Amino acid sequence: MWLSRLSAERAWLANQQVRRLSAFTVVTKSRSRHRRRHEEDRKRQHPWLLGLSAAAIGGGLYYAQRRGALQAATQPKGVPGDRVFGYKEYDATEVSKHDTKEKRIWVTYRQGVYDITDFVEKHPGGENILLGAGGSIEPFWQIYGVHKKPEILDMLEEYRIGNLADSGDALKNTEDPYANDPVRHPALKPASLKPFNAEPPLKILAERFLTPNSLFYVRHHLPVPDPSPAEYALEVEGIGIEGTKTLTLEDLKTKFPKVTITAALQCAGNRRSEQNKIKKVKGLDWGAAAIGNATWSGARLTDVLAYLRVDCNDPRIQHVIFDGLDLDPTGKPYGASVTARRALNPGNDVILAYEMNGETLPRDHGYPVRAIVPGVVGARNVKWLGRIVLSEIESDSHWQQNDYKGFCPSVDWDTVDFKKAPAIEELPVVSSICDPADGSEVPIVDGKVFLRGYAWSGGGRKIVRVDVSADGGKTWCEAELVEQEKNTHHFRTWSWTIWQARVPVKPGQKEVELVSKAVDASYNSQPDTVEPLWNLRGVLNNSWSRVKVTLKS
Amino acid sequence: MWLSRLSAERAWLANQQVRRLSAFTVVTKSRSRHRRRHEEDRKRQHPWLLGLSAAAIGGGLYYAQRRGALQAATQPKGVPGDRVFGYKEYDATEVSKHDTKEKRIWVTYRQGVYDITDFVEKHPGGENILLGAGGSIEPFWQIYGVHKKPEILDMLEEYRIGNLADSGDALKNTEDPYANDPVRHPALKPASLKPFNAEPPLKILAERFLTPNSLFYVRHHLPVPDPSPAEYALEVEGIGIEGTKTLTLEDLKTKFPKVTITAALQCAGNRRSEQNKIKKVKGLDWGAAAIGNATWSGARLTDVLAYLRVDCNDPRIQHVIFDGLDLDPTGKPYGASVTARRALNPGNDVILAYEMNGETLPRDHGYPVRAIVPGVVGARNVKWLGRIVLSEIESDSHWQQNDYKGFCPSVDWDTVDFKKAPAIEELPVVSSICDPADGSEVPIVDGKVFLRGYAWSGGGRKIVRVDVSADGGKTWCEAELVEQEKNTHHFRTWSWTIWQARVPVKPGQKEVELVSKAVDASYNSQPDTVEPLWNLRGVLNNSWSRVKVTLKS
Repeated sequence: MWLSRLSAERAWLANQQVRRLSAFTVVTKSRSRHRRRHEEDRKRQHPWLLGLSAAAIGGGLYYAQRRGALQAATQPKGVPGDRVFGYKEYDATEVSKHDTKEKRIWVTYRQGVYDITDFVEKHPGGENILLGAGGSIEPFWQIYGVHKKPEILDMLEEYRIGNLADSGDALKNTEDPYANDPVRHPALKPASLKPFNAEPPLKILAERFLTPNSLFYVRHHLPVPDPSPAEYALEVEGIGIEGTKTLTLEDLKTKFPKVTITAALQCAGNRRSEQNKIKKVKGLDWGAAAIGNATWSGARLTDVLAYLRVDCNDPRIQHVIFDGLDLDPTGKPYGASVTARRALNPGNDVILAYEMNGETLPRDHGYPVRAIVPGVVGARNVKWLGRIVLSEIESDSHWQQNDYKGFCPSVDWDTVDFKKAPAIEELPVVSSICDPADGSEVPIVDGKVFLRGYAWSGGGRKIVRVDVSADGGKTWCEAELVEQEKNTHHFRTWSWTIWQARVPVKPGQKEVELVSKAVDASYNSQPDTVEPLWNLRGVLNNSWSRVKVTLKS
Repeated sequence: MWLSRLSAERAWLANQQVRRLSAFTVVTKSRSRHRRRHEEDRKRQHPWLLGLSAAAIGGGLYYAQRRGALQAATQPKGVPGDRVFGYKEYDATEVSKHDTKEKRIWVTYRQGVYDITDFVEKHPGGENILLGAGGSIEPFWQIYGVHKKPEILDMLEEYRIGNLADSGDALKNTEDPYANDPVRHPALKPASLKPFNAEPPLKILAERFLTPNSLFYVRHHLPVPDPSPAEYALEVEGIGIEGTKTLTLEDLKTKFPKVTITAALQCAGNRRSEQNKIKKVKGLDWGAAAIGNATWSGARLTDVLAYLRVDCNDPRIQHVIFDGLDLDPTGKPYGASVTARRALNPGNDVILAYEMNGETLPRDHGYPVRAIVPGVVGARNVKWLGRIVLSEIESDSHWQQNDYKGFCPSVDWDTVDFKKAPAIEELPVVSSICDPADGSEVPIVDGKVFLRGYAWSGGGRKIVRVDVSADGGKTWCEAELVEQEKNTHHFRTWSWTIWQARVPVKPGQKEVELVSKAVDASYNSQPDTVEPLWNLRGVLNNSWSRVKVTLKS
């Protein structure tokens, strides 16, 4: 958005400058190393079996396995998904064009490309299979865990049409500062392409406690940098440090204990579209899926600072500034800061993360290192972390000073004074109904309708209850908290909660409004309506989640 | 309430047991010493001049001063409020009976008793003067600061009718376990008498940043203990401590730095009456004044534990239990606990307070020592602190386990399971309109109505904005934050905020609904309506404050 005001020429110049200033160039060798490790990490990954979704992609493949077994002799040999000699090579861009029945439905699995158009009709999960159309089937199989069985993988090979070419640079175009952006999963629904901002289908969020990396919402402000891990150097400076200290990626990985936390990240603009319906706001038209939950591994910030002999209790340090390696056209990095009271308390689990869900941090999520400040709005969890500054004052970046702040509904662009509101740090308690979708038709089972979703609160406040209603909020019942971190402290729980409920509906009703509201450990709960929360930037919408559905009689 | 189920006889027996078990007896000598110090403290007190209320008690006295000057020759000599030889002695109970014009309106100032009935008519603040009827005028003069002038004090002496007798034990009745409760200011409106629970007139709360001690809401669960300061001993035990350590009041005052913080305390049941209107709940029918803001001085808990060589980072310590000296009929103390993550972090400012607003802690607020856990529900700020236990588990007290918890509106006394909800610790963000009162008639000035109130949030989250509406929440404007601690951290602000606003009303309107909603540093805000917050104990009502008024045309 900010960048969209620039002409193409200025953007191109900016890109050149980004490359010059960041002093990072593409080092093919180390990128390959990185990719190998990435795949090894993926192999180590657990097949989290949620057992919730029999009716999903490949559910049909499973039932069709006998046909596959009969045809086994005609299938390519070797490990399913391996590159198979003699097949045509397709890059990801080519695959992504095949996302409708008319254009044929292609999917990829590891190095395999498959045309599953003829299978779609047989898929018991129906349209669900189209979520993966034009891209990798793997993140969906992380969600619909029942598919990860040898017989299903063998079955998939029946539909092989080619190998997936190395397409990392398929979009490369030297005239476009975004040309070097990574390829994304086509299931991510873009709110903007340049910079890339996208959210996954809302429905999938409630199906898995950990959001798969490739389906995790992406929120960029600038083109994605491409630092080489070998040359990566994190600069640390400011109060209590003489000059500038640097730490390599290797330093972060080897000099400090590897700490793993589970934390949800949410964009301040999540559910902005509901504000847009009331009165147009400035900002990406996010649905309710600009949030995700993942494990993050890395070095604890306080360990790193102790190593640099910084006194974390030094009262002069009031803010910790994080600068990214993504630069704006003037050469200024994306930047943000958080209060030192939060960042310098080891109990607040701020980490410099190099892994996400046990995999190498993907480029879209800050490779090689990002700040994870759990309980805090996504915007302060700076990606491609280039510099940390221990400071008396906040970051002076545009995004800290003149964005990501909340205002009274009466404030407009003529009257707004960004100095009057504090930079968003913790986010308020929120929940969303992920399933069923607004406007859908839902079955009644034993007089009840089924709904599920996520709930989360900022500042480490655990979700203690989710209330749901099938009459627009007149009567309530309590949802079941089906996935939540166990034994975490009520004020040190960074991850979200997945909930579900079966709510009675009155006989004969044709339409109902389903509602959810969450309560956190401070007993804060969600406001009833969105109108009184409206603000010119469309941030901070944590009103009740409301979904209107028709009932199948 | 809990005690109300006991027969009078059992209550009497309980009282005997309280006296026996607590091992504290009334030591007249030391009580007198205490009273002397109390008065010395009072003399040192600043005349906080808010300058907000010209139209209040004594405003009229001021205007009438010339008459007083003319009659000065007839006035008693000496310092105003001093005991004057030759006047009749009245105790506080006798004074408290004179609280209407029919019974004559008496007030006290220091050791003076005054009949101001004939002055009431001349008082420019009108009915305001009746707030002090039957009790001390001093707390109101703390609020309406303009009165603290020598000429007004001289004026007051004109109305002298007697001296105030030492009435500390006026209510004493050995058959009543509450007989030894202190005398309270008659302006406190009781929600229950035994145990004593009362709130001040709502209107006065927004008039002064610091609530005067004698007008601070009182919330007791049991009879008020009366420990002697000389014999007072705080016991500390549990993980990391061998046996039981004891600290005297003198130890707390002399061995540790005196720390002063400003913190609001709020009862979990504040604004319960709004829930009662929807469907009857169990609990005291509190209005919106079961909250107050004061400075608290004492020893920092972490300093005391360091002195006892406790490692505050010991991971075995999960909870800090506070037991009071107020005992139930079985001899079990009132008790509560807070999480160690909160209590053992010096940055959370938990103190063992022996002063309130610069005065010796009053008996009704925990004399000689109470726990102040700022940002946390009043119930955990244990008064008459007798014992601290460092523990792996929560307090097993009734009030921690089976009370002070929140539930879904659908939960009733047949289905409630207190184990399912966490004990309330931090409270959610709240605001209340203190002035005008619901149902009152208000003037329109320049097309606007004036309102003011308080706002506060738990967990140290500073109030960053208060929005107000004069059309039931359809349109909003921002209130002015007139009194707020300056330069405190956004996540370490324990005190409340006083706000005021002038909101436009549409011409020709006769009735409007005024609304306030506050926003805290985590950008949590108040829910729109009370119905979805309803719960069987009537706690945690932080819905929008709504006041219906008629407009003077």
